[in-house]
Amino acid sequence: MAHLTILKIGGNVLDNAILLNSVINSFASLKDKKILIHGGGKIANVLMKQLGVEPKMVDGRRITDEKTLEIVTMVYAGWINKSLVCQLQALNCNAFGLTGADGNIIPAVKRPVKDIDYGFVGDIDTSAINASAMCGLIEQKLVPVLAPITHDKQGSLLNTNADTIASSMAIALASHYNVKLIYCFEKNGVLSNPDDEASVINRISEQDLNNYKSKGVIHSGMIPKLDNAFAALKSGVAEIVICGPQAFQAENAIKGTTITL
Amino acid sequence: MAHLTILKIGGNVLDNAILLNSVINSFASLKDKKILIHGGGKIANVLMKQLGVEPKMVDGRRITDEKTLEIVTMVYAGWINKSLVCQLQALNCNAFGLTGADGNIIPAVKRPVKDIDYGFVGDIDTSAINASAMCGLIEQKLVPVLAPITHDKQGSLLNTNADTIASSMAIALASHYNVKLIYCFEKNGVLSNPDDEASVINRISEQDLNNYKSKGVIHSGMIPKLDNAFAALKSGVAEIVICGPQAFQAENAIKGTTITL
Repeated sequence: MAHLTILKIGGNVLDNAILLNSVINSFASLKDKKILIHGGGKIANVLMKQLGVEPKMVDGRRITDEKTLEIVTMVYAGWINKSLVCQLQALNCNAFGLTGADGNIIPAVKRPVKDIDYGFVGDIDTSAINASAMCGLIEQKLVPVLAPITHDKQGSLLNTNADTIASSMAIALASHYNVKLIYCFEKNGVLSNPDDEASVINRISEQDLNNYKSKGVIHSGMIPKLDNAFAALKSGVAEIVICGPQAFQAENAIKGTTITL
Repeated sequence: MAHLTILKIGGNVLDNAILLNSVINSFASLKDKKILIHGGGKIANVLMKQLGVEPKMVDGRRITDEKTLEIVTMVYAGWINKSLVCQLQALNCNAFGLTGADGNIIPAVKRPVKDIDYGFVGDIDTSAINASAMCGLIEQKLVPVLAPITHDKQGSLLNTNADTIASSMAIALASHYNVKLIYCFEKNGVLSNPDDEASVINRISEQDLNNYKSKGVIHSGMIPKLDNAFAALKSGVAEIVICGPQAFQAENAIKGTTITL
């Protein structure tokens, strides 16, 4: 099977023009078939404040009311997505921006209300992802650039977690390609000491994760990221790496954290 | 050759939810291969005012400074484009939103500064349009929905007139399809009396246009629209219609204005 690299870049990379530029350059020069998936960054919050819409968060997750949906769609699918596309195009990478609504690539379900009403937030059913449409674009030598917006196929756009889009897309394409999924964020990888960027754990197995969890070395936000990663590996994704922007510079020895079963 | 319908909807249709809904429904039910091209509407101006950015217009054309480019990209490529896509998807029309930057479909040139500096505004070289990428999407049974944003292939997005995108795209695809180009705007067609919606001119040849111009029946904004239409017909576009939203309702006798050589 042909190799496919899926790179997910988070908000902290998007918000730093120098880091972003370096990652974009490295991504453009990758020879494999590839997909870029981006998160949001601070611009949406800045715009919301300017427009007098107060960002609402519960447990680190945004509550997406109607006005917020309009703003995140403008920022994620409009400005960030098209800026990335035109930067990549300038580097001769044939980028093609899209959301999960386009071509019905990622149908989603509005998150059911239990304790919290998250509003217009989408949950993805991985088996519903339209892998053949995605393959069609890739085989047309286009490089999909995915914004974290999906839809419910009933006329509503939905704000959707970019990490989840990345792992779901990796799983959906695993029967078509040998998929390497890279999560690029502001740290150098999974750290054994969060205050020491040199403490990157090079390799984590599921057994290691349980040990690190019980010792409290790995906690909070990193746990769902790693749980997602193991789920993806079990569903056929070939390789998963969590790393910092520096990992894309070939001359740099920092390689991030490789997740293995 | 297979038939292809290109429908361009202007700002006044986008700003009227009832008209828009009716046009979208008719477009979704068209059996031909098809493309939707949309303009901007009032939302960009409203957002600019909310953000304290004063819209600058010269001769009816927007001056696009850096901040304005960011706003129109958010509104056109983000909110309007993705709202149209997800409305069409709900009608089982496999819409796929894009700008001219995506897949380098429409490379453009930043308008050279003569008397006026229009800023980040793109002029299209029709021969540079990437028709094969567009055909690739259409043959994949996707329905492209084009926002009026292009790029210069050097890292800048460019604000671009939607009427021009529509006629350029029609010309670029005329050697691949039998292209019918429909301009849908707020009037019922080209009117011989601008105050009487019943005064639709059913058919206009180039000779007719010259007569109407000399009599002052057709003037101002309609002239560049018609000049563009004749240029497109001469470049191989099969049929051009200028009509109102009502023309899409089968039961309605108002058919708009057909332009013929």
